[in-house]
Amino acid sequence: MIEPIGNQYIVARPVYSANAFVEDHKKKLRYHKTFLDNLKVCCSCSTQKAKRIALSLFPIASWLPAYRIKEWLLSDIVSGISTGLVAVLQGLAFALLVSIPPSYGLYAAFFPVITYFFLGTSKHISVGPFPVLSMMVGAVVLRLVPTTSTMSLDIFNSSMSNDSSTDEYKVMVAATVTVLSGIIQLVMGVLQFGFVVIYLSESLISGFTTAAAIHVLVSQLKFILQLKVPAHTDPFSIFKTVIATGVSYGFDFKNRFNVAVVGKMQNGFQPPITPDIQIFQDTIGDSFGIAIVGFAVAFSVASVYSLKYDYPIDGNQELIALGVSNIFGGSFRGFAASTSLSRSGVQESTGGKTQIAGLLSAIIVLIVIVAIGFLLEPLQKSVLAALALGNLKGMLMQFTEIGRLWRKDKYDCLIWIMTFIFAIVLGLGLGLAASVAFQLLTIVFRTQFPKCSILANVGRSNIYKNKKDYSDMYEPEGVKIFRCPSPIYFANIQFFKQKLTDAVGFNPLRILRKRNKALKKIRKLQKKGLLQVTPKGFICTIDGFKDSEDELDSHQIEELDQPINLADLPFQIDWNADLPVNIVVPKISLHSLILDFSAVSFLDISSMRGLKKILQEFMRIKVDVYIVGTDDDFIDKLVQCEFFDDEVKDSIFFLTIHDAILQILMKDDSTSKFNSSQGKDAKFDFTINTNGGLRNRECQVPVETKF
Amino acid sequence: MIEPIGNQYIVARPVYSANAFVEDHKKKLRYHKTFLDNLKVCCSCSTQKAKRIALSLFPIASWLPAYRIKEWLLSDIVSGISTGLVAVLQGLAFALLVSIPPSYGLYAAFFPVITYFFLGTSKHISVGPFPVLSMMVGAVVLRLVPTTSTMSLDIFNSSMSNDSSTDEYKVMVAATVTVLSGIIQLVMGVLQFGFVVIYLSESLISGFTTAAAIHVLVSQLKFILQLKVPAHTDPFSIFKTVIATGVSYGFDFKNRFNVAVVGKMQNGFQPPITPDIQIFQDTIGDSFGIAIVGFAVAFSVASVYSLKYDYPIDGNQELIALGVSNIFGGSFRGFAASTSLSRSGVQESTGGKTQIAGLLSAIIVLIVIVAIGFLLEPLQKSVLAALALGNLKGMLMQFTEIGRLWRKDKYDCLIWIMTFIFAIVLGLGLGLAASVAFQLLTIVFRTQFPKCSILANVGRSNIYKNKKDYSDMYEPEGVKIFRCPSPIYFANIQFFKQKLTDAVGFNPLRILRKRNKALKKIRKLQKKGLLQVTPKGFICTIDGFKDSEDELDSHQIEELDQPINLADLPFQIDWNADLPVNIVVPKISLHSLILDFSAVSFLDISSMRGLKKILQEFMRIKVDVYIVGTDDDFIDKLVQCEFFDDEVKDSIFFLTIHDAILQILMKDDSTSKFNSSQGKDAKFDFTINTNGGLRNRECQVPVETKF
Repeated sequence: MIEPIGNQYIVARPVYSANAFVEDHKKKLRYHKTFLDNLKVCCSCSTQKAKRIALSLFPIASWLPAYRIKEWLLSDIVSGISTGLVAVLQGLAFALLVSIPPSYGLYAAFFPVITYFFLGTSKHISVGPFPVLSMMVGAVVLRLVPTTSTMSLDIFNSSMSNDSSTDEYKVMVAATVTVLSGIIQLVMGVLQFGFVVIYLSESLISGFTTAAAIHVLVSQLKFILQLKVPAHTDPFSIFKTVIATGVSYGFDFKNRFNVAVVGKMQNGFQPPITPDIQIFQDTIGDSFGIAIVGFAVAFSVASVYSLKYDYPIDGNQELIALGVSNIFGGSFRGFAASTSLSRSGVQESTGGKTQIAGLLSAIIVLIVIVAIGFLLEPLQKSVLAALALGNLKGMLMQFTEIGRLWRKDKYDCLIWIMTFIFAIVLGLGLGLAASVAFQLLTIVFRTQFPKCSILANVGRSNIYKNKKDYSDMYEPEGVKIFRCPSPIYFANIQFFKQKLTDAVGFNPLRILRKRNKALKKIRKLQKKGLLQVTPKGFICTIDGFKDSEDELDSHQIEELDQPINLADLPFQIDWNADLPVNIVVPKISLHSLILDFSAVSFLDISSMRGLKKILQEFMRIKVDVYIVGTDDDFIDKLVQCEFFDDEVKDSIFFLTIHDAILQILMKDDSTSKFNSSQGKDAKFDFTINTNGGLRNRECQVPVETKF
Repeated sequence: MIEPIGNQYIVARPVYSANAFVEDHKKKLRYHKTFLDNLKVCCSCSTQKAKRIALSLFPIASWLPAYRIKEWLLSDIVSGISTGLVAVLQGLAFALLVSIPPSYGLYAAFFPVITYFFLGTSKHISVGPFPVLSMMVGAVVLRLVPTTSTMSLDIFNSSMSNDSSTDEYKVMVAATVTVLSGIIQLVMGVLQFGFVVIYLSESLISGFTTAAAIHVLVSQLKFILQLKVPAHTDPFSIFKTVIATGVSYGFDFKNRFNVAVVGKMQNGFQPPITPDIQIFQDTIGDSFGIAIVGFAVAFSVASVYSLKYDYPIDGNQELIALGVSNIFGGSFRGFAASTSLSRSGVQESTGGKTQIAGLLSAIIVLIVIVAIGFLLEPLQKSVLAALALGNLKGMLMQFTEIGRLWRKDKYDCLIWIMTFIFAIVLGLGLGLAASVAFQLLTIVFRTQFPKCSILANVGRSNIYKNKKDYSDMYEPEGVKIFRCPSPIYFANIQFFKQKLTDAVGFNPLRILRKRNKALKKIRKLQKKGLLQVTPKGFICTIDGFKDSEDELDSHQIEELDQPINLADLPFQIDWNADLPVNIVVPKISLHSLILDFSAVSFLDISSMRGLKKILQEFMRIKVDVYIVGTDDDFIDKLVQCEFFDDEVKDSIFFLTIHDAILQILMKDDSTSKFNSSQGKDAKFDFTINTNGGLRNRECQVPVETKF
């Protein structure tokens, strides 16, 4: 029991290194699941599991038997009729975005709903055409089906003059792309790839939909203004269209009364088509984009309602449902379906309880297709275009996001801008892929340049904060506390090392080499009998010992990186004391280095090797290193990777910074080290003997003749 | 001053929330550099800066004047001659990898060294052909120049029969690719892209070079065995070659005495060529790969020596130097140069001190080119191939890495394997790009599924560890401590939420909705006068109050998510006490949730929104949330992003887990909350009145008729 004593934080316990702590507190032996265990669970098979999987493949088997006819049916009927009417108009409108005759939009609003009814897990979304998706299909159609007379602005004429072979080919392309993206969705669903949506962050979606809105806006303006402009088809073409709109505006506006109408509606259905394998090959990239965007939109809208009405949806099953719907819809000349936020809003707000409402909306569309389609024939295309545009205002308003994001988070702002640029310049399909890749890269960037800092004690208790942040800080002399606030891995281990070197103020390897060089010289002096060993250390009996800079060969330089070996010397050397004249080693006051790793969530193999090298370098110049704040797992991982040896031991781990600081202060020799580093009361020092004029020269000659 | 008291950790200080701490300890006002400031520094211009840049562009201007002729020249001459001889043989051998006549390898060993002498920053590397790089150029050559009779195995014949037009075109392709990759390197150097090498981790390099060794091995075997096999050119073709080797081995081996020799050596130089723009377009991807690999190899070898001899090298300048060298070398029919580890080893170990040794090695190559090349003409190609293979043993030994990495770090092992597969299947250029992308993705994966844990107190002091790890743990009742050991961002905020919900054992939003629903019913009862307010709370005067499950519309459901408003009620409701019959709300014992964010190094906008929603949901069901262990920067960032409002306040931040625990224990009402959560001594409870048979029915009817 912990008893609070007033508003006081009072603690008295032993100082704990990680090892000492485990001695005091028995650690439970836990069995950690291995990779093989997980694989077994994953692949295990039982009747129950098979049943559960079968049931999850047909969600209708769960919800239809529980349908409350009395309470829900009326709402579903009302909702179904309203949604159906919206679906008819949206279907006609969005078909324009695909650049195919409007009547095909009705197929897109009918077929997918039927399959989704059986396979879908969301009760509230209205499956069918979605502007951005229609636009993406349209971009493919216009790339693969060049308008009859290329380079002229007559795409609109061609559809007016009922150039049926071109139209038929366009429908073919749209349907094929739809089938292919359906196949992709189905495969992803079966492979349990529903998690991909988590890679679409808010900033990315905002930037992407804004770019899509721009694409849609540009392509729709030509219908509203009755301009004859080819829709943009490939990367960079959006600029052409923009320009063309400006050029054409003046002289084409006069023709505005020669308006285009929906035209002949096909009564009833048409036979299913066989997708063209050649088109598959040409559109695989776009189809991926369409598959992902279609799923992402449907899933995010479904998530909103699943959260609101508190029922589960299953991403993988949604992928399967949408995939089958698109294969089915595409085979019957529809185009890619997802959901439109506005239509789902209608379905939900008018009281839709289940997909029965969706089914009824499909029946309304069916009635229009087979019976009363002719009533819509005089509808002006410009009205439909305006309808499509109505959806876009909100999306375009998202431009204000840029400023808001810039103030809040530069990386998110960058994601928005880059996504927008990618989607505009590379087109929606490829742009999405590039954006996701860029976005994942920002996660690497964020961790790659951590804001490392030097900590010091605030308030003389156990609190350590950034030294730059507070005025009354205490930093024990000869101790540095260095904090790295991010994982360390191959891409930032060099950065980490650089920051650490900056923080301590010297390069440990360089110090080690200088000391080893000095040691060589001292050995040489000793061999020549120029050093007298005294109880206090040793005395150099010559004055002004001069040694030329030896040219070391490759092997000798490697020796300089080895630990300093004083075993064969009859005296100790204090590197911070004055050494004999002309033997200069930089003095360092650091004797202990504490690395705060509480935010280092992982190390990889590259960084481990780098870290070990850094630790060795410090230890070889007698700087004690303490690592604090790590998880137990962290140490286990290092043990597993054979990180520790005779030099770098696992005793360097302490629970907290304060434990390490107390340990340092407790160490007797650390105190003496601290004293000697100040040059006072040094235990050993060099006494300079001033009588060695001649011997000095004697000593100098042989050294020089060596070269 | 902190005084250590024996081996004891003794602390007495106030309990600190982040706010209380800042009140006690004045924080310094620090000016944080803005984006604009950094831009200014970056773009500022001064004479000194210009001078420094100019000097860094020509490193020779710094080191040549400081050249110590007496001490270094002899070593450099010895080293230069040895390196030159190695360079001649390697040049001839590696030209086979490029599938061009061996004599062109001498150009590759000569021209780049000359420019590197002026522009390079490394003193020890020997610039020139490198097997992997030669192989990469060779792959491009064989893709663009199909052997004369396609599908037959006569490439070797064609080069024997001196089909000079094909050879010339091959040399042209190799030279063009070299120039293009030189241009890419130069541009990258000017744009300061030298940092790209940090993205090549050890595991990646190991996997990549092993794959390259396999490629080289397969392509060389045909020379050693004198087989007539086309070298593999495109993705997947490596398998064909393997197979072909097996098939051809038997019957071709007999012809082995009809051996191929180096053949006619061109005496002197040939005129420079103009690269073909068409080839530029076809090889831009490969050239990128060649540029990156060439630079990465040269830079990593240079780094080894710069560290050993302790002098600085400059990545961007190295890029510029290699870029110019390749443009120069390519223009004179050489192929891509980098450095070979073995040749640099020769240069360094034989005493090379500066690039003077490199220059001398180039002169040796020059002598062979212009004067004594004919001596090498009878050299067997199989000898050269064996020379090239000698380099590969070490690389192939790297297969043992897989097992080692698997034991140490699964992700690193995965990087190795995927890099190997990518480089084998996609070819070296594209494979490298795919590997780097995959590798960066692993960084995302590592942070995406953090090992969240529940902590509890060990040893009754201020130490909190994973509850599963130790046996004698103390967890105050009604308190959960949840630790997330990684940054939180768009891709793992849902995962974080799921883990948190699992940890506390309930979904706070669902509890909130149930309470709000119950409140509606209690209000209804009160309106009907069926509740009597007593000093102890309220008494329900009916028995068995029954309410049908109301069907709520869309708007009413949204209301359920709002905070519970008890202001208009004349009594308090204790949700953990027994409520009137048929009003059931799940009881929760949790009253305080501590989130240990000490390893959460950043949040992005998406995760902030998600986190805020989670905090709100908990706060609305009266669970106090504490966030501990964050940096000061973290809170500043949240303030900047307008994270805080009336509901989620910045007072939730505490310095450590222990501060938060003490704060919780101190709170008077928390104690009472704890009591009431046990159902004992509840302050308010519902007394059931058993006399309401008739009124009960009266109450029930109107409720039912509503539907």
